Amino acid sequence: MNVNGKHYRTIWLEDDGWAVRIIDQTLLPHSFETVRLETIEDAARAIETMQVRGAPLIGATAAYGLCLGLRRDPSDEGMERTINVLTSTRPTAVNLVWALDKVRRSITGMSGENRIEAAYASAASIADQDVNACRRIGRHGAEFIYEVAGGGHEGPVNVLTHCNAGWLATVDRGTALAPVYEAHDGGVPVHVWVDETRPRNQGAALTMWELMAHGVACTLIADNVGGHLMQHGMVDLCIVGTDRTTASGDVANKIGTYLKALAARDCGVPFYVALPHSTIDWGLDNGINEVPIEERGSSEVTKVAGRGGDGTVGSVDIAPIGCRVANYAFDVTPARLVTALITDRGVCPASREGLAGLFPEGTR
Amino acid sequence: MNVNGKHYRTIWLEDDGWAVRIIDQTLLPHSFETVRLETIEDAARAIETMQVRGAPLIGATAAYGLCLGLRRDPSDEGMERTINVLTSTRPTAVNLVWALDKVRRSITGMSGENRIEAAYASAASIADQDVNACRRIGRHGAEFIYEVAGGGHEGPVNVLTHCNAGWLATVDRGTALAPVYEAHDGGVPVHVWVDETRPRNQGAALTMWELMAHGVACTLIADNVGGHLMQHGMVDLCIVGTDRTTASGDVANKIGTYLKALAARDCGVPFYVALPHSTIDWGLDNGINEVPIEERGSSEVTKVAGRGGDGTVGSVDIAPIGCRVANYAFDVTPARLVTALITDRGVCPASREGLAGLFPEGTR
Repeated sequence: MNVNGKHYRTIWLEDDGWAVRIIDQTLLPHSFETVRLETIEDAARAIETMQVRGAPLIGATAAYGLCLGLRRDPSDEGMERTINVLTSTRPTAVNLVWALDKVRRSITGMSGENRIEAAYASAASIADQDVNACRRIGRHGAEFIYEVAGGGHEGPVNVLTHCNAGWLATVDRGTALAPVYEAHDGGVPVHVWVDETRPRNQGAALTMWELMAHGVACTLIADNVGGHLMQHGMVDLCIVGTDRTTASGDVANKIGTYLKALAARDCGVPFYVALPHSTIDWGLDNGINEVPIEERGSSEVTKVAGRGGDGTVGSVDIAPIGCRVANYAFDVTPARLVTALITDRGVCPASREGLAGLFPEGTR
Repeated sequence: MNVNGKHYRTIWLEDDGWAVRIIDQTLLPHSFETVRLETIEDAARAIETMQVRGAPLIGATAAYGLCLGLRRDPSDEGMERTINVLTSTRPTAVNLVWALDKVRRSITGMSGENRIEAAYASAASIADQDVNACRRIGRHGAEFIYEVAGGGHEGPVNVLTHCNAGWLATVDRGTALAPVYEAHDGGVPVHVWVDETRPRNQGAALTMWELMAHGVACTLIADNVGGHLMQHGMVDLCIVGTDRTTASGDVANKIGTYLKALAARDCGVPFYVALPHSTIDWGLDNGINEVPIEERGSSEVTKVAGRGGDGTVGSVDIAPIGCRVANYAFDVTPARLVTALITDRGVCPASREGLAGLFPEGTR
């Protein structure tokens, strides 16, 4: 997507052909800065500190991180050590593991320089495939927007989304926001209600920023507001992303997604989940019991970062000194609350049968 | 309740017998300061800027505000002007109107000094009645905590609450938190999950502060987290307050309450609403259609106040410059999602019949 009129992906190779450049998303929406990654440590830190986030982008960054690791030590032992370091950065993101496996498989049996070259080719292919997958998700999901717009609907189609499953969470286009961009670019008026998404405020900081940059109408709301909007007919459909989808269609996404799915069900609003097939974990069945939920530090909740009155970025502490905090980063929305899954291969019911129909190879 | 070992109400008469003192709740949890109110403008500002908030405390402040107005102009015309000013400060709080009516009725037919003296007596009686009502709510609601504790429950009883319906929202003891204080003071271990309650963070700032000050175990969570906790059996019951209750048992409370009620229903967790009967609006039936929902300024969402690194209180801006915001302050939880109402007269189903059984005078 565009920033200041120039097209960017969220991750790309430098002109030197080996170092990797990313957008430092921790600085958004206050400043747009890019960061050069030269080592496996740089890549691991970028994932861990959430300079990059979003399941697909984490996958692409891990793939390039493995390339950087192989430059230092292309041995099998070095590769496994690198993979272990990268795997431990974010325990919930299944396509981190998927991307690393894919690069590993592509270089099996090779050695030395060939191995490094093949790894870079594999990482580039992961990035390109993600862009193509997001384009397809956009086209499939936009049909639901066109359906509302074509049904005598007054004003823009109102989409509610949670967290950031946009361009910034992927290599380009986004997952949950891909249908929005597709419709908007096609001239269909869309308006997005953007959950701020506490505690890290990815909605306020990232989704609002990228939608505004692209010229899509959008309104920031506190996470508490979506239910009220749905009760009053102000939301036509919800679209969210997912970090991990079980074989039965349960969806692990940013904490709070479950609450919006409940409101959508209660108010008769369709609730769609957009995903590239890399986020499907075929080995999991019951998401609530089986998906490990990451717990993050308390300061994410007690300290809020933003621009101060003087324009510099800092943080303030909103809670009493010494207060206890629980910070679960994801929750699981059961398949029964999901109207449909929007995948790169098309739309399907959130069920074992639905997913198996589109991805027969996954169940083998 | 106690602050630094000294007992405070949230509003009281100064030693001079006419000026009113309140706690400036906008400064909590960072500093504990009290403010002297001498005029109707002081009182209106205290309500409008939310130095005082919470339906019962707003009522008591409005009652004393009318006394301050009558000191300047005790005429009928002056009284009506004062009532109009105070009524317009917070459109959703029904017992603001209730308290003003009560003072007005108590002084009808009087004039001059008598009128002022009777108004002060009426305001004092409103404050005392609130304390007594909260004590009774505490005793009735604590039964639900004892029930869990007595059923072979391991560890403390886990209560989830939203916003602040504690001591700070009332004159003393609280509504939703009154059962917690009752159980805690009676030696039954209780732990409270405290929703931070965006956008004004009353949970983080006020509920955490008052629970910690009183020594009740409590954990701060983002508003998005409660559903996940309920899915995993980590919440035994929810108790929230209400700003306005319809005759049919629908409940208008802080935005986001509806989402927690949906999660409680989905997970089989009891969802209780605690209220003094002054918050019942007998003239309303369908809460979603009939309760006017206050919209507040966008800066409440985009700017977050707190302690900076140097200890001073300031604010940071979390959103892109120029972003559009919608800031609905309340939502309505339909009666069908409420397990029971905990009132100062006892517990009843959230229904017309339930409320009429406890308050037969209300339906007349």
